[in-house]
Parts: sequence; structure tokens; C-alpha cells
Amino acid sequence: MSATPAEERAPAPEPRLTGADLREAWQVLSPDERLEGLDLVPHAEMESLLRTLSPRDMAELLALAPPSLRRSWMRLLPPDDTADVLQATEPELRESLLALLDEPTRKEVVALLAYAEDDAGGLMSPRYGRLRPDMSVDEAISYLRRQTRQTVENVYYVYVLDADQRLLGVVSFRDLLTAPPDRRVREIMHTDVVTVDAEMDQEAVSQLFATHDFLAIPVVDADGRMKGVVTVDDIVDVVQEEATEDIQKLGGMAALDAPYLETRFGTMVRKRAGWLAALFVGEMLTASAMAFFEDEIAKAVVLALFVPLIISSGGNSGSQASTLVVRALALGELGIRDWWKVVRREVSAGLTLGCVLATIGFVRIVLWQAVFGLYGPHWFLVAATVSSSLVGVVMFGTLAGAMLPLILSRLGVDPASASAPFVATLVDVTGLVIYFSIASLILRDTML
Amino acid sequence: MSATPAEERAPAPEPRLTGADLREAWQVLSPDERLEGLDLVPHAEMESLLRTLSPRDMAELLALAPPSLRRSWMRLLPPDDTADVLQATEPELRESLLALLDEPTRKEVVALLAYAEDDAGGLMSPRYGRLRPDMSVDEAISYLRRQTRQTVENVYYVYVLDADQRLLGVVSFRDLLTAPPDRRVREIMHTDVVTVDAEMDQEAVSQLFATHDFLAIPVVDADGRMKGVVTVDDIVDVVQEEATEDIQKLGGMAALDAPYLETRFGTMVRKRAGWLAALFVGEMLTASAMAFFEDEIAKAVVLALFVPLIISSGGNSGSQASTLVVRALALGELGIRDWWKVVRREVSAGLTLGCVLATIGFVRIVLWQAVFGLYGPHWFLVAATVSSSLVGVVMFGTLAGAMLPLILSRLGVDPASASAPFVATLVDVTGLVIYFSIASLILRDTML
Repeated sequence: MSATPAEERAPAPEPRLTGADLREAWQVLSPDERLEGLDLVPHAEMESLLRTLSPRDMAELLALAPPSLRRSWMRLLPPDDTADVLQATEPELRESLLALLDEPTRKEVVALLAYAEDDAGGLMSPRYGRLRPDMSVDEAISYLRRQTRQTVENVYYVYVLDADQRLLGVVSFRDLLTAPPDRRVREIMHTDVVTVDAEMDQEAVSQLFATHDFLAIPVVDADGRMKGVVTVDDIVDVVQEEATEDIQKLGGMAALDAPYLETRFGTMVRKRAGWLAALFVGEMLTASAMAFFEDEIAKAVVLALFVPLIISSGGNSGSQASTLVVRALALGELGIRDWWKVVRREVSAGLTLGCVLATIGFVRIVLWQAVFGLYGPHWFLVAATVSSSLVGVVMFGTLAGAMLPLILSRLGVDPASASAPFVATLVDVTGLVIYFSIASLILRDTML
Repeated sequence: MSATPAEERAPAPEPRLTGADLREAWQVLSPDERLEGLDLVPHAEMESLLRTLSPRDMAELLALAPPSLRRSWMRLLPPDDTADVLQATEPELRESLLALLDEPTRKEVVALLAYAEDDAGGLMSPRYGRLRPDMSVDEAISYLRRQTRQTVENVYYVYVLDADQRLLGVVSFRDLLTAPPDRRVREIMHTDVVTVDAEMDQEAVSQLFATHDFLAIPVVDADGRMKGVVTVDDIVDVVQEEATEDIQKLGGMAALDAPYLETRFGTMVRKRAGWLAALFVGEMLTASAMAFFEDEIAKAVVLALFVPLIISSGGNSGSQASTLVVRALALGELGIRDWWKVVRREVSAGLTLGCVLATIGFVRIVLWQAVFGLYGPHWFLVAATVSSSLVGVVMFGTLAGAMLPLILSRLGVDPASASAPFVATLVDVTGLVIYFSIASLILRDTML
């Protein structure tokens, strides 16, 4: 309540930004603003934020950061994350960033860069706890105490290797802590270890984690030599990434591979325009199909009224079926070998769903006829045409939607490409043919 | 090469089934066959298979298993998994299964059953390593050696609690192993612990894991008292489950909540029929819209030919936009507050994509006219009508597809309900209105 004018007071210390504030705002900041923000945050919080950034964000920051910061930031991350960041970096910058690492880490990172980003090799960390089979439990614990200080990133499993680095077994910390101190590691290790090779696709690796509830899986080469470990915390990101890819493909476009707001406009439009144009060209067949039935439409314009209703019902039921099958394939609940089971299921489902829609459609036409008298003297035949077409179109849509992902998968194409729009386009032309053929049959000699 | 007839030889020992064989075949076996299979597998492999089953599968087996097996199987799983299994069990069976547990485990399980399955409380395990702040590192390690033997499920983090079970901090095994043996736990523990409360939704919990690369997050109540830990291995399943739910909703149906082949036919059809019928009723508006323009169609049947092409283009572009926005919302890349950014982006994207399709459409009509002469004397005006409608319809589809998930989210509805079929239905009616309005404008005094 004092009257001192504001200008005369000592300036209040600038309110510092907390790591949580910055993290909150992160997605909406430009790279320059991010760099500024990091400068305002307490050092420890800055470091912990940097450790959890996506490789893309980190690469962007490193490109902008002054050389002094680059050096310390490059040394923050474990080698597997560093490799991911370098893979997201412009090639020109990669060498100079690598040069900032200390010699042993650089070697590890260079070795990791040889693997494709979305293989087990690209996910694994070369830093893991290792033991010899003939150590006692007590020796093992004190050996790990020293090892851990330097090079071990995650310490819930420890791997038992022979002199040639071949994997003999695994012990958990729990095993070590609960075993009598004088037992040999060899006696308490588990030898039925599930391993993967470095080329295994990350989707398959994540499937293994989901099925077995593992915390880590060792990566070995063809001779059983240990290369690294993939840990479950990296798998959470993989599962999300793969689901995002599938979802975007199912939406009828190429996967963005980056957050929506961070994708450049040109890239995004290109990834959407490709599929949209392809679908458009496919959908042009509907214009040809309609032209083929132009005489029928001219004679009975009432038929045209139901075209959107009928073809969209085929598309919708097809989209449901393809979505179910695509996801079941991705989760390994279903394989190509199950195609006959899928056919039986979806034919029955299609028939049932078709009858449901046919009933609703029939009632609608009868009601509108009673109230508005829209559909002329042959309204009953029109209703019969629409209803029977719905059964046929929904059955065909369902079956086509269910089979398309299986066929794509058989051809080696990602089944998620069997998107709702793709299935709809496929089903639209057939839907028109079914509708007008049934119409010719039912309405011959009356309206046509 | 001996001539002994086959009947005279001793029968070969029946080839045993391995756990891996059984796991491979699991999805296609009936519950009875599964039970039989488990009987043929070596005991240890049977147990490890049972430990990784889904709660639903395990509940099914328990319902079928003879009482002697039930008892030992119920004691295989840690309390959090047991609670999940009981939640998947028929209510009548639940009490008798609970009675098979030993007293302390039963108490833990009953406590866990109070939480909703898809909250943090439903995911957490009540068994975690705990320490007092004043122990020395050496005391802590030997204390954990004893504790671990009995009750600790996962041992990478250990929680430091006061006498009232309030969470003071966390130490990792790594911290303990690398610290000097005579330091106090209090001195090496981390106190900036991220915690969640038991009611937090599992989707939000999994988002925390994905952002921070945590291995475990402690669950505390309003007074800071520790309730349990959620570990990352459970989160892999959650992320997959949530993605499956979103994908199925995006495909225009209710989420199945069970693997495709294991869902009963009736349940599956019901979950599909609901949305399909709702969409059908919505789509009926197209019949009304078409009826409104019936005179125009009768005068210029050529207009009807392009109806499927035009409305599907709106639907496809809308489906792309809604898919992008739904996924970005689910991953936290986008919030409702960003709506204006989305509008600006999608209006530009819609305009660009609309122009691409308009160009293709124009060229197609000109070509077909040149070759087949399909579209009559006013073909140029028809081409102009179709092209300008495409720009309008694609722009509207894109914008509606992008806004619908944001609006649903604002209304507290799951944005994933903005499925491709839903958006298409919404856009179809408007598409027809745009098309026929533009046609009236361009074709007045010539064809109409």
C-alpha cells in the first residue's frame, strides 16, 4: 500500500521458469523459443528435460545451439539415444556432433548407427550389466557395484557371458539379492532366455514385450554373441509410434512420422494428396458406372435419390470390417491362415447387418410415402429395391473390407493401407452395380 | 529297413508339447483344448505361460479347471494380476476363487478390486520395495535382500517411506549399488518424485510414462501416503489397448474390448450394428437432399453421374483430417486450445487438396468428352460445376473433419468417435447441397 512509484523500486528478480512450465509449453514453442526457455530453467531441470526429448526435437536444438552447449548436451544422453538423435540430424552436422563425444562412447554410437532406426538394433543399448558364470553371488554383487557406476544404463537384468561374449543366461537383481552369497552365478541363472536378432522389426519386438511382460530382451548375433539390450521403456514409444502409423494409414493417408503441429505444411499436404488423388481416380469409376445406368436414372429419377445412402452403407460396413481385421493382424490375434474363419464370420455378420439396415430403410420409405407421397405409385417396388440392395451391398462391403487387409498382407503390403476411404472407394462401384442390377430386375415392366 | 510290422514295435513315447508350441497355437484353441494343452506341457513352461495370459483367458481357464488346479493357479499370479483376472470372472465364481488365496494376498487383492480396471489404482501393484530414510546404504541392501524374497515384485526402484507410509523419496538399485555403504538413504534419495493418484485414467498414466521414460510411477493418496506402483511393463499393454479402442472407434464402431476371434458373434454384431444404424439414419438425409433437387436431376441427369464422386471426395478428405486431429489429441500433441491453429492449417490444406482434385476432375471430364462425347453440348459447364464443387466440398470436408474431434472433446465425448464414417455422413449431405447449389448457379438458363 506504499506510494513509492513503481520505477523507483529495485527490479524484482525475474521469475524463473520451471522445467514443468517449459515442458507444458514445449509443443507450441518454436525452436528458438525452446532454446531461450532452456536458458531460463534451473540447470538440473534443463538436463532432465533434454533427456526426455524426442530425437527430432533434440536434433533441432543441437543444430541451433552455440558450440559450448552442444558439447555438454551431446554428452548427456546414453549411446542409443545419441544414435537416434544423430539419425534425426542433417547429415552435414553429424560428423561434427560425433566429434564432441568421448572416444569409447563415439565407438558405441557409430556401431549403433549401422542399424536401421526401426529394427531391434536401432533400439538397443550397448550398456548392460554382465557377469561371468563362475563368479559367486557375492562377487557378482560387488562387481556390479563397480560396473554400474560407469557403464550400465538399466539394471534389472544382468547377463552372463562366456569369454567370447556368448550369452549363457540371465539373472535378475532379485535373483542375486535373494540367493545365498556363496552360490555360483551359473547355478542361479536362467538359461531359457528369449533373444532377438538385431534385424528384427520393432513391431515384432514390441509384440514380444506385450506377450511376455518382459522388462528387457537381449539382442544377439547369429553366433549367440550379445550385442545389447532392448528395454521396455523404449517399447512404450514404439507401440505408440506404430499405432499412430496404423491410425493415419487407416484414415486414408501416408503416415506423417512427426507430430501434427510440427509437420511442415508442404509435407503434410503431400502425404494427404497422394492417397486422396488415388482414391479420387478410383472413385471416378462410379461416374462411369452411373453413366452406364444413365437411361435407368432418366426413366426413374427416384432411383438416383438413394444412391448416396446405398453406397455409403457399403462403405461404412466395409470400414468396420477392415478396421477390425487390420488391428487384429497388427496385434497378432489373426494371421493370413485364419482367412476362412474371417470369411465365415463376416458373411454372417454382413448378412445380419444388411438385414438391420434393410429393415430401417424399408420402414423409412413406407413412412415418407405415407406422409409426403414422395415416391410415386410404385413406392412399394422402390422400397423393395432399396432394401434388397442394402442386404447385398452391406454383405459385399463387409466381406471386401475383411478380405482386403488379408490380401494386402499376403502381397507384402502393410494391411493398414486398407483404409476406410480405400474400402469405401472399392465398394462404391460394386454397390452401384448391385443397386441398379437389382432395380432392373424388380422394376422391369413397371418403371424401367 | 527291418521287416518288423509296425504293430509289433513298442509304442514311441508320446511327443510332448512345448510351451512355445502351445503359445503359438493359443489363439485358435478353444478353452477346453487350452486346458488339455496345458496338461501336456512341462510344469515350469505351463506356469510361465499362465503368468503371461490375458486376464480374460486366465478367467476362462479357471472357470473350467478342476478344483485342484484352481488352487495352485490362483497362487501363481501377483495380486494386481489376480485382481484383473477376478474382474474378468463371472461374479458367481469370484468369491470361491478369492477363498483359495492365502490371507495376506486376499486382503491385497480385495483392496485392489475396489479400483476401476482402467485407473492407475487398477494397474498398480501393492508389492514394492520400501526403506526408511535413516537406514544406511548397506543396511538398505541387506534389508531389501530379505524383503525381496517375500513380497517385492519389481525391484528397480525402492521407495522411502516415513512411519505413516508417506512417500519421502525414491532410490534406484543403481543408486544403492553405487553409493558409499555408510551413507544414509535420506542423503541419496531423489525427492522430486512424479506421482499419480489412484483415480488417474490409464491413458493419462501411459502418457506420463511415454513422456518421461519412467520404469515405474508410485501411486499415492491425497495425504501423500503410498498405495502401490504402476510399472512400465503393464503400460505396454495399456498403450496397445487404448490404441485398439481408438482404432475401432475410428473405424465407425464401438470398441470390442476383446480379441476379434474371441468376441462372441452376437456381441460383435451388436457393437457394429449400433453405429451402422445411426450412420444409416444420418445418411438418410442425403435421400431428402436429393429429393429436394429432384427437378434438377430430372432436367440434367448428367448431374447425378458425379454425385458419388463428389460426396466421397468430401468424406475422404474429412476422414484424413479427423484421423490426424484425433491421434494428435490422444498423444497430447494438440489441445482444444489449439483450435484456431488447426482451423488455419486445415483451411489452407483443404483449399490446396480441393484444387488438386478439381484439376484431376476437370481433365477427366474434358478427356472423356473428347473420346466418348458423354456429357452433351454443355460439357464445359458441367466440368466447371464439378471442379468448383470439388474445391468447396473438399474444403468443407477437411474443416468439418478437423473440427469435429475438437468439438466432441469439448463436449466430454471421446474424440475418437469422430470416425471416418461419421465424418463422411456429416459431409455427404452438405456436399450434395454445395454441388447442386453451384450447379444451379452455373447451369441456370442452359441445362436447368
